[in-house]
Amino acid sequence: MNDDITRLIASPVSFLADSGPDDDIAISSRIRLARNLAGWNFIEACDAAQLREIGTIIADAATASGALGCPECFDFKLDELDEIDREVLFERRLASRDLLNRPEGARLLIRPDEASSVMINEEDHLRIQSLSPGFQLDAVWQEINRLDDQIAAELDYAFDDRLGYLTSCPTNVGTGMRASVMLHLPGMTLTGELTPTVQGVTKLGFAVRGIAGEGSDNRGNLFQISNQSTLGESETDIIERLSQIISTLIAHEKQARRYLLEKEQPTLLDWVGRSYGTLRYAYVLSTEDALNSLSGVRLGVDLGMFSKLNLHIVNELFREIYSAHLQKKAGTELSPDERDIARATLCRERLAHLNK
Amino acid sequence: MNDDITRLIASPVSFLADSGPDDDIAISSRIRLARNLAGWNFIEACDAAQLREIGTIIADAATASGALGCPECFDFKLDELDEIDREVLFERRLASRDLLNRPEGARLLIRPDEASSVMINEEDHLRIQSLSPGFQLDAVWQEINRLDDQIAAELDYAFDDRLGYLTSCPTNVGTGMRASVMLHLPGMTLTGELTPTVQGVTKLGFAVRGIAGEGSDNRGNLFQISNQSTLGESETDIIERLSQIISTLIAHEKQARRYLLEKEQPTLLDWVGRSYGTLRYAYVLSTEDALNSLSGVRLGVDLGMFSKLNLHIVNELFREIYSAHLQKKAGTELSPDERDIARATLCRERLAHLNK
Repeated sequence: MNDDITRLIASPVSFLADSGPDDDIAISSRIRLARNLAGWNFIEACDAAQLREIGTIIADAATASGALGCPECFDFKLDELDEIDREVLFERRLASRDLLNRPEGARLLIRPDEASSVMINEEDHLRIQSLSPGFQLDAVWQEINRLDDQIAAELDYAFDDRLGYLTSCPTNVGTGMRASVMLHLPGMTLTGELTPTVQGVTKLGFAVRGIAGEGSDNRGNLFQISNQSTLGESETDIIERLSQIISTLIAHEKQARRYLLEKEQPTLLDWVGRSYGTLRYAYVLSTEDALNSLSGVRLGVDLGMFSKLNLHIVNELFREIYSAHLQKKAGTELSPDERDIARATLCRERLAHLNK
Repeated sequence: MNDDITRLIASPVSFLADSGPDDDIAISSRIRLARNLAGWNFIEACDAAQLREIGTIIADAATASGALGCPECFDFKLDELDEIDREVLFERRLASRDLLNRPEGARLLIRPDEASSVMINEEDHLRIQSLSPGFQLDAVWQEINRLDDQIAAELDYAFDDRLGYLTSCPTNVGTGMRASVMLHLPGMTLTGELTPTVQGVTKLGFAVRGIAGEGSDNRGNLFQISNQSTLGESETDIIERLSQIISTLIAHEKQARRYLLEKEQPTLLDWVGRSYGTLRYAYVLSTEDALNSLSGVRLGVDLGMFSKLNLHIVNELFREIYSAHLQKKAGTELSPDERDIARATLCRERLAHLNK
């Protein structure tokens, strides 16, 4: 296992530690920009040597620009990492499944607090990402725009005056931007409003995905809402339209929680209580069970039901319950059964510790 | 609601407070004797006036004999009780469903500590019951035999030299005795040994019933094992054969628990932990959910997993979670939804109180 991955796990994560606007419902705001170097083939048409050369050019540019806190940034070459370490990067939402699946020449630069990062040779040469807690897409846009400028000053991007930024996949051409907000929507799930609302949001041209990305289910009641189109609108127009959708969803979720508190209080309290009981006393815990229990407990924290438990601890657990993190913590590979036991132990001990 | 029922609920119950042999597995030992008065019709052929007269004769005899602690015993006329109060007597296993269904002329005398009682005009004129904690059928036999003699000294029983005691239903003719032990068998349920074992016990001529009596399911993993035959054997022979069966079942259950502790420890701990978590934090609790959670917690107590929780508290909850008890405690009728909330509140507060 890689020492830097261990250091990454141990270092404080700004997005988890800080609070942000509406963070009782909005977990985080994220923007990523797809960029490619001018004068190079898209990665599908590059051989291993070219991919490595592209990696060096971009990493050198990041260092020269001072972006991402480089040279103090993390710099991972994916093909040098074992499977668990690679999976840790995915679980921390720093690496995409695509990056993991094509490790040759793939590289990942990460600012020490994980607030921004660059995937190199994922689907495009660069995928610049920036992240903040809560609902604050404008601030994330300011930050990533600055980061993009810093890096661009050292590189020559593939850009067409009519189309905008050129990308490997046509769906990203134009701004190359995907903005998203991760929302925790247990209230709308409980009232049954979620499905029609998701359908409405989708019709407006935005994507709704579960916690683990494309096509995943609604485990933990976490949903990522993002723009679909990247062409024909400015970045700020896209962000404004998305922000309106997010504001509406947050208002709906607040309304659903108020309704539940007034009309279905026992059901609501029961779900929160049982969720806490499960995390506090179970000895075997599947990922799904843990995610759903954490969702219940997070709602309890939002409603002020706990005196010692806070969002920071819940957010941390939402990350640490995943298999690679558990195995990294254990310092060894674990069978699926052993992971379920380790996951329960982690949650049990974390919550028991609060009551000491 | 009847004040004596309130007093009954509030008074200490010897069988719950005391401990008995093997009470990690055996909840209680119980014997009942069916008796009828000579010179009177069986109750099916009596009118209301006759039933009342029979009630008076038996109650007077009990008082004269000093049995059941009379005249300080409880003396309930079933047709004077409302439905909730009658149901309380059933939930405390003092009255049978048959007694409740035919309240006219039905009467119930109860020793203040509930260790013995007499149902009057149930299926027979008298059904004398005696009960002790744990597995001690011999001691219960001594007690009920003494009680029977005390009452018999004041009454003339219907007895045939060849057949023995005459009873309304032919299945009780002879000794008129039904002996039973209530066992808590979560280990055998978890290992899957329960079903074949129950089949074996049934083939040997003993009955196995769930907690609520005839034909009920295995909620709470509580099973009552009793003799089927009452004819052709002495009382002590029946008790000896039943005791052998009970000893075997207790040994099997111990073996199952040892196996689980050695080979399936996480599954076992998980069940106990989640059961505790449910009772400690749920806000809505069905009877079935409560019984199964109490079963898990009882096993945890038996295994020494809890420092403050003891069998006495668990045994009390096993009784107090029932609907009539909850309504009696609330002092008012409760809808099914309200009962589930009251049941959860009772368990939550009882367990929270331990940790203060």
